[in-house]
Order: sequence, then structure tokens, then C-alpha cells
Amino acid sequence: MPSQAKAFAAQSATTPLAPFSFERRDPLPTDVAIDIAYCGVCHSDLHTARGEWHGTVFPCVPGHEIVGRVTAIGDEVTKFAVGDVVGVGCMVDSCGTCPSCTDGEEQYCTTTGFVGTYNGRDRHSGGHTLGGYSDKIVVDQHFVLKIAHAEPDLAAVAPLLCAGITTYSPLKHWGAGPGRKVGVVGLGGLGHMGVKIAAAMGAHVVAFTTSPSKIDDAKTLGAHEVVVSRNPDEMAAHAGSFDMILNTVAAAHDLDAFTSLLKRDGPLVLVGVPEHPHPSPNVGNLIFQRRAIAGSLIGGIAETQEMLDFCAEHGLTADIEMIPIQQIEAAYDRMVKSDVKYRFVIDMASLAG
Amino acid sequence: MPSQAKAFAAQSATTPLAPFSFERRDPLPTDVAIDIAYCGVCHSDLHTARGEWHGTVFPCVPGHEIVGRVTAIGDEVTKFAVGDVVGVGCMVDSCGTCPSCTDGEEQYCTTTGFVGTYNGRDRHSGGHTLGGYSDKIVVDQHFVLKIAHAEPDLAAVAPLLCAGITTYSPLKHWGAGPGRKVGVVGLGGLGHMGVKIAAAMGAHVVAFTTSPSKIDDAKTLGAHEVVVSRNPDEMAAHAGSFDMILNTVAAAHDLDAFTSLLKRDGPLVLVGVPEHPHPSPNVGNLIFQRRAIAGSLIGGIAETQEMLDFCAEHGLTADIEMIPIQQIEAAYDRMVKSDVKYRFVIDMASLAG
Repeated sequence: MPSQAKAFAAQSATTPLAPFSFERRDPLPTDVAIDIAYCGVCHSDLHTARGEWHGTVFPCVPGHEIVGRVTAIGDEVTKFAVGDVVGVGCMVDSCGTCPSCTDGEEQYCTTTGFVGTYNGRDRHSGGHTLGGYSDKIVVDQHFVLKIAHAEPDLAAVAPLLCAGITTYSPLKHWGAGPGRKVGVVGLGGLGHMGVKIAAAMGAHVVAFTTSPSKIDDAKTLGAHEVVVSRNPDEMAAHAGSFDMILNTVAAAHDLDAFTSLLKRDGPLVLVGVPEHPHPSPNVGNLIFQRRAIAGSLIGGIAETQEMLDFCAEHGLTADIEMIPIQQIEAAYDRMVKSDVKYRFVIDMASLAG
Repeated sequence: MPSQAKAFAAQSATTPLAPFSFERRDPLPTDVAIDIAYCGVCHSDLHTARGEWHGTVFPCVPGHEIVGRVTAIGDEVTKFAVGDVVGVGCMVDSCGTCPSCTDGEEQYCTTTGFVGTYNGRDRHSGGHTLGGYSDKIVVDQHFVLKIAHAEPDLAAVAPLLCAGITTYSPLKHWGAGPGRKVGVVGLGGLGHMGVKIAAAMGAHVVAFTTSPSKIDDAKTLGAHEVVVSRNPDEMAAHAGSFDMILNTVAAAHDLDAFTSLLKRDGPLVLVGVPEHPHPSPNVGNLIFQRRAIAGSLIGGIAETQEMLDFCAEHGLTADIEMIPIQQIEAAYDRMVKSDVKYRFVIDMASLAG
């Protein structure tokens, strides 16, 4: 029978998140029931809860950087056992049959689109999906990830489920690795993981920041060089030298400053949709070295597992600040001001209080 | 000793092209001297002669779609003999040592940049290079191409040296071929070659045009389907279906209409720099299917030879309208109005008149 879940939800775009309870479905044959221990706080949570992207269905329970323990499994579940430490990321379902899904790129599902962990269309229970700011969740085993990290790191693993895969996937796809010079623009939740992962992949990593105050932090994260992107001379010194640049900054900005730093055939990969358009990029910058501006969206389930295993092997986690769920609105306000190093994670034990 | 060349030149951005004579250098040891038979008329010629791209050095002798016969060779020339039918395209020199040059991608030379066939910096004779609107030219053998086509087609081969390679190179680079659906946007000098070449490569070719009047022409050129891009329903029917789209339109236009037609990982490849920027492209269109907007510039010398051989093998030439050089200004005026199917070619015998 369905179980009662405790959560925090927004009841409208203008009301703060507050305690809420609802039913999670009884596990279906291929479902895994999970007690959530930690949930990372992503900018998408804030944009959705506050209705900034429109299309939010209320009540809204955000959260798609989930780590927890398996409490029950359906009859046909083969991948997991009760007690396993597992993760759930941005997706809980997809069509399973389109070319993207059969290629293991469920995030690009072309029929229904993937079903988001929150604010998606729930094919099993009807209505919309409710996310990880809750004490439990029930997810089809295909969308559940194994966590190999040990206990003390589990809170810091949660952000890998979105920030980690969003940076790992393009770095892998465009060949970050030994002998390659990789730029990472922005040092927030995504960017700090981009720097760590690119460095662990063996690339020469250059972090770009607008804040000279972040230079030391970027080096601590693993950047071999740090460029203050507001300094034209520093930028010019790197002209035409990057194999790829991963751009994690969603705010509208001048892309030409970065495309001009790429080698022939290098891509500038965007992972954030700006609220207002970037200034139109200079086409000459693309044509004269066959460069590209590309986009990338999270990563597939198999690749997310690969990323988690890679991070466990390399001892990588996110740098986090843990909060009780009662402080979520204050955390959102600080995120808006980029006042976090580098990701808030909710300790879900606080829900029991 | 240097030889006297007859030509047409612009003496300033505001004076029409008119008869002009100058000296071509005596062939250096690795040079090939060529009597020019035909020269195609490219939009770049017009933009340069009329100073629209700034940076034009006068007098300006345009022309970089050159076909002619070898009249003399330097002592060290091994690739060509007197009497050979040859071509010269957009480049006559490059540094030869940078990674792009050693990779055979001289068009992306990263030290000096490639030396244009006209308006480039002449490393041999000083001053600036003077192009193909002339009766002879002297070019290092590395930048001279063999022409396998037979005599009656030679005038129609000339446009392959720019329009042909500019479309062949990206089609090849991004894998146009059997089982692939390829779009070609615009049906001018470049686009008409793009359609022919993509079809000869075995791709399923869809031509995009704003003019319903061009539907039959596009099919005659080899397009399997033609889409009137101003018709939203026709466009929507192709959403998410293209492996690549080659966009030959330089005028500012809505790129989103085309990125949304690409499959996952598909590139929209731009080969023209717009005078005014395109409207800023929708980043979401890129992120949600890992699409890219890329640029491509002509092609390397080895690839240009490959393209010429491919076109000879498949019986491909440009559709041309031949003119005497005395009509060049009228031809420019018609090009501005897109009133040509699809390329003017100058019969250089007219210079002797």
C-alpha cells in the first residue's frame, strides 16, 4: 500500500516552501523504494519552485540530487537489494524505445521527453512527480544509481547526481583527458565540479572567473591555471589554445571572448539556458577555425553510473554546506547571490524534527 | 624575368573594375605559371572590390575560382608539367609549419593565416596578391590543383575552387553520405553546389528556400525534398530529423528555425559571415539535443583535390552563366539581386579583345 511521505513543498510561486505530506506509490514490480538521506539544492529547484521558468505545477516538491538507502524492492528488481546506498538524479522515467533511449541517452528522449524527478508527468500515479525534498521516493530501478562512496561522503555525493553528470558528460563527450587543454567558465555548483572532474580526467584545466577573489579556490579545486575573464590581456594570452571550453554560466554574457580562445575544431559547450539571450555570437569566430557552440544536458543513466564510479575511484565529491530543510528559503536567497561554496545539501534527518 | 599580366582591377572602393596591367613574378623553383582560361565570380570578389569588408588594398584584382593551363614550371616542380589543366582556389600560400598546415588544413593556418589569392600579403613579391581576373598567375605548386574534367566542362569547373570546396568540406567533415539526412539552406552559388555534392555523396538531401519558385530548380539540382522555409508547417514536419544542415545564407536570419530541425548531436554549419549579426540563437535548442552551431571555411588543399576528383568522377560541375570580363560590374549588380543561376564565370579570352 502507498506510504505517506513527509516533504517540503511550495504551494505557489509566491509562497515559501513549507511542510507538506503526500503518498508515494507502493513499489511496482521494477520499482525501488528509497529512504532519502540527503538532497542537493540545484538552481533548477529554485527556478521551478518560484515559477521563474513558468510551467510549474503546484504543489511543487523540488530536489533531484538524491542519495538514500533502499527500503523495499519490487518483485522483478534485480539491480538492487534492501540496504543498498543509491542515488536518483534528474530523471525518473523516459519512453525507453526512441533512438535516444535505446542509445542510453535518456535525457534526450524524443517522444515524451524524459520525466523529471519533479514537475514531470507521472506515468504511474498520475499527476506530476514530486522530488527529493522528502523523506522517501519510489523510482523504477532503471533510473536508480549505485553509490560506491563510503558513508562519511554521502552528503557530498548528492550534488554529483546533477552538477556532477552535467559537467562529466560534456567533458567525456568532447574528449577531456591527458594532453588536452580544457577551460571551465564559472565557479559555482556546476563549475566547481567541472574543474574537479576535468582535472581527474587528466586534462590541463584552466578555470575562468570574473572574481580575482576566486583564484586560490579554483586552484584548490584542481585548476592548473586561473584566468580572470575581465582582464583582456590574460584572455588574449590563451587565444586559440583550448581543445574545449565548458561554460557553466547561464547569465547572458559575451561568448566571443571564449570562442576566440578555442583551437581549430574546439567546441564551447553551454550547459545553462540564459534568462535573457547571450549577445549574438560572432560567426566569423566559428568559421575561421571550424569552431562550434554546442549545448549539453545532464547525461544518460549509464553515463551517470560511470560518473559516480569515476568519482568514487578518484575520491571526488562536491564541496558542500549542509543545511536542515527548514533553512531552504534562506539557502535559495544565498544561492541567488552566489553565496555558497559550492552546493547546499539538505540533511533529510531534519524532516523528522 | 617577370611577365606582364592583363587584368581588370578596382582602383578604389567606388570605382568600377577596369583594365589594368601589372607584373607577375618569374616562376620560383617551386612555382607554376598558369594562363588563366576561366575565373568564377564569387560574392567575396564583390565585397572586396567594393570595400565592403574594409581592409581592401587597392588596386584590387579579385578572383579565386581559377582554371587554366600550365605554361612554365620552376626547376623543383614535380607535380605539374607544361600543358596541364589546373586550378587555383582561395589560397596561394600559408606558413606550412603550424598544426593546421601540417594537418593539411591550410585554410586554418594559425601563424600568418593563409594568404588569399587576392588581397593577401604576398611573401614572394611584396605588396599584396592579385587574383584571377587576369590572364595569368604564378602560384607555388602546393596551392595548385589538378583538374581531371574534360575540356567542354572547364568553365563550369572554375566555381568548384571556392563554392565547391566550401560546401564539400563541411559535408565530408560532418559525415554526409548514405543513410544520412542533410539539409542545405539557400540556393545560390554555394547552395546549388551543396545540393549537388550532398546528393552525389549519397545523402538524402532536403533543400531549404524562401522562394517557392525555386522548388523545381532545387529538385533538378538533386534535392530529394524541398522545404519553403517561410512555411512553418513544412518546417515543423522535419523537426528533429536532420543529421546535419549546411547553411549557405549569409544574410542575418533566424537560426533557431533550423537548429530545431536537427537530430541529437546534429550541427548547423554556417559558411557565411553575416554583415549584421543573426538574431541570438536559442541556447535551449542546443542543450536539449546536444546540437551545435558550427562554422566551416573553404577546405584544405588535399581536400580540394579530393573534391575536384570526386566531382570529375561524378560528373559534377557548377551551373554557370559565362560573361566577358567587360560585363563584370553588371554581373555584380545582378549577383546582389541573386539574379544568376548559379555562378557567373568570366571567359578570360575576353581580356585579349
